[in-house]
Amino acid sequence: MPRPTPLSLLLLLLLLLSSFFFLFSFSSQASHPRSSKWAPRFLGKFANPSKPNTQYRYETRYFSQRLDHFSFADLPKFQQRYLINTEHWTGPERMGPIFFYCGNEGDIEWFAVNTGFVWDIAPRFGAMVVFPEHRYYGESVPYGSRDEAYKNVTTLSHLTAGQALADFAVLLTDLKRNLSAEACPVVLFGGSYGGMLAAWMRLKYPHISIGALASSAPILQFEDIVPPETFYDIVSYNFRRESTSCFNTIKESWDALILEGQKENGLQQLTKTFRLCRELKRTEDLSNWLDSAYSYLAMVNYPTPADFMMPLPGNPVKEVCRKIDSCPDATSVLERIFQGISVYYNYTGAVDCFQLDDDPHGLDGWNWQACTEMVMPMSSSQDLSMFPTYDYNYSSFKEECWNDFSVKPRPRWITTEFGGHDFKTALKLSGSNIIFSNGLLDPWSGGSVLQNASETIVALATEEGSASTERFFSFLAVSNICLLLQ
Amino acid sequence: MPRPTPLSLLLLLLLLLSSFFFLFSFSSQASHPRSSKWAPRFLGKFANPSKPNTQYRYETRYFSQRLDHFSFADLPKFQQRYLINTEHWTGPERMGPIFFYCGNEGDIEWFAVNTGFVWDIAPRFGAMVVFPEHRYYGESVPYGSRDEAYKNVTTLSHLTAGQALADFAVLLTDLKRNLSAEACPVVLFGGSYGGMLAAWMRLKYPHISIGALASSAPILQFEDIVPPETFYDIVSYNFRRESTSCFNTIKESWDALILEGQKENGLQQLTKTFRLCRELKRTEDLSNWLDSAYSYLAMVNYPTPADFMMPLPGNPVKEVCRKIDSCPDATSVLERIFQGISVYYNYTGAVDCFQLDDDPHGLDGWNWQACTEMVMPMSSSQDLSMFPTYDYNYSSFKEECWNDFSVKPRPRWITTEFGGHDFKTALKLSGSNIIFSNGLLDPWSGGSVLQNASETIVALATEEGSASTERFFSFLAVSNICLLLQ
Repeated sequence: MPRPTPLSLLLLLLLLLSSFFFLFSFSSQASHPRSSKWAPRFLGKFANPSKPNTQYRYETRYFSQRLDHFSFADLPKFQQRYLINTEHWTGPERMGPIFFYCGNEGDIEWFAVNTGFVWDIAPRFGAMVVFPEHRYYGESVPYGSRDEAYKNVTTLSHLTAGQALADFAVLLTDLKRNLSAEACPVVLFGGSYGGMLAAWMRLKYPHISIGALASSAPILQFEDIVPPETFYDIVSYNFRRESTSCFNTIKESWDALILEGQKENGLQQLTKTFRLCRELKRTEDLSNWLDSAYSYLAMVNYPTPADFMMPLPGNPVKEVCRKIDSCPDATSVLERIFQGISVYYNYTGAVDCFQLDDDPHGLDGWNWQACTEMVMPMSSSQDLSMFPTYDYNYSSFKEECWNDFSVKPRPRWITTEFGGHDFKTALKLSGSNIIFSNGLLDPWSGGSVLQNASETIVALATEEGSASTERFFSFLAVSNICLLLQ
Repeated sequence: MPRPTPLSLLLLLLLLLSSFFFLFSFSSQASHPRSSKWAPRFLGKFANPSKPNTQYRYETRYFSQRLDHFSFADLPKFQQRYLINTEHWTGPERMGPIFFYCGNEGDIEWFAVNTGFVWDIAPRFGAMVVFPEHRYYGESVPYGSRDEAYKNVTTLSHLTAGQALADFAVLLTDLKRNLSAEACPVVLFGGSYGGMLAAWMRLKYPHISIGALASSAPILQFEDIVPPETFYDIVSYNFRRESTSCFNTIKESWDALILEGQKENGLQQLTKTFRLCRELKRTEDLSNWLDSAYSYLAMVNYPTPADFMMPLPGNPVKEVCRKIDSCPDATSVLERIFQGISVYYNYTGAVDCFQLDDDPHGLDGWNWQACTEMVMPMSSSQDLSMFPTYDYNYSSFKEECWNDFSVKPRPRWITTEFGGHDFKTALKLSGSNIIFSNGLLDPWSGGSVLQNASETIVALATEEGSASTERFFSFLAVSNICLLLQ
């Protein structure tokens, strides 16, 4: 039997630690108020990015990038920010690995300080750590300022996944050359949208890395690859498994909300019931606020307390349902809902009144991406979902994107560029060394890869946040990757 | 032993016929006058594209393509021409294959009528044949006309290999969907630059095809992957293997040319010696004209007569050397050269005087591509080359590109985008089903893949235009592809 190499040990350790990674990091990226047209967001507006945590040390650097890698148009360059730590790197002679986190749709410092896993394991492997920021987010905006970059369809036109991947490829190639580290293995990391980028990076630029850990990466949530009901069915399952009455109360609450809102002074009454800071203008704003909380809760339904996005108890969905179910019998549906939702929005009890996001369609980066490439059809089914029944309607989605951005979505581009249909067959022959890790309670898991595609494209599914038999088998499969990586 | 499937039979037959394909088709695409800065061209300006051959029937269609697949800028669309024949296609129910030729840098009809192999085998496999034209060539030009498309750096900026591949991917995806042929296997074909595209297409869009036959595709002729002397060393070897004196005469001729040109009335004398139609302005123009012929001759050095680019006898290099060597002893070096070169430029004897190309740097598509992405370093060595010694000089190349197109080359982009360094290791894990076929006398073979990278990325090298042992072993390797393709 071949002796394990440092690289194989690295991947084994990665594997052992990936459940931790999953539990306390990426999958906790949560969703945004849902209207009829938008897919849930990975990251919510309600989240308050933490201040940089002094626990992790890094240097901030900037790299000059082309705005368009795929043309020779004379466009202004932009400065891509990246965070780097080389203090534990064993250097090119000892083939010190490069841990490269594929930056998501936000400030890279926030992802860096919330991705302890990568920092924690880097010293053991003598690895360098690099966190590049995604173009158009954080400080890495073109045209000199965020306002200029987000001005119109022309300035936003180069905010695409393909360009972001090319940024990563160019940065990595340059970094390796400057450090004479061409032969050093690069391991990609990423969660949520960043996990999609890590997986796609491995597919599109396989010569630049040796493998990727793509956590909670719904790369199949496009077109008709997975049923559009998947996301909300999984959110709802989180609640139904705790209590059928809780599920039913939430399911009934949407009609109750509308009825209340239609009454004379109904909006005033809702404002009062839900302790809103400003008077409610439309019932829909309140529905979106609730909907968003349920989706978030499913994403961060960890067994232990965590405060990635909000300070929450362990098993927060169980806690919400306990509140909803334990009200005195005479309590109204809407009052029960308020009690439940307060677990999410006010667990510390410090909030006096709640601010709704009543302009969820602002010109922000993810909305642009959702209106161009990241077209993820979402429906809400009649039976398995606790949300109002809704059939995805591409025409109205397209129309609203035109109104917001003057842009036409290209709903088939992602699958043309990266594949997705018949993923397993396609990847069996032509991809390698990707670990897709998912928690099955995470609503995004439904659009991710949950079955091994080959010996080296493996799925690690963590049922209910604990190790499963499937995971154990996947572990064996990943051991094979290690042996292959010579 | 598994039973062969229709698909495996298809690939076996492809393999059996690929030597024919190699001999009479792609590798005969020839080079262009070389100056100190330009890499040889795949296609020469001297070639007269044949009129569409009525032997092959096809329908001409147009497909509306985005000018920039990788941004959402509001640019005008263009019509991509493609030739299609479905008369032998067995249709989606019987999984009828799609034979897809990756169009090169020229009019697609010319490639179609010169690629008999694809037409010949299609009926046997019940295959559809599609020949898409490369953007900015033939009729597939953006901005309404060739003049507008080639006007400046802005209009030319989207003439890139990456965009052309995306054109192919979008066209294929649309074609398959419209014909309900999503499950039908696509086999990619291509030679020379088209062969590079076929290989890259397989690497970048593996979900869209099942395999590629990349003929004479120098995908490693970038940066320092292969020695820059390779091309001219192989050209020279074609002559040296016929006759050392022939090789030496050519090697001596360059100085003789310069000496003659420097004499009083020297240019007039050269005009006379070489039967030029117009008086020679610079000796360099004549050198380029000769250089070009030698490179072409090496590319089309077939054992049997062929007239792909020029009407030529079998073993044309042998014929050239016979002419050079058999002149009476007193014959001057330059007169010998003229006798030899006439085999190439005037084999039929119909030419009264010769037209030189004295403006080789015009704004044409391939020059743009060479000045942007297709930066192929070429040197001429002291001993093994019969050409004047020359060390590749990137600075002067860059400067001349700036003068011609106001564009800065990106010499490292191709290897960042598609890989190339340490090709075998990178491809071993993450690519599959590419046959690289090469004739070892073809000077482009030096930059192609001549060793198997894996069981399914195989090299077929044809030594001296006849089957070699290596080819036989490769044949066995390809049999394995067939078994894999279930």
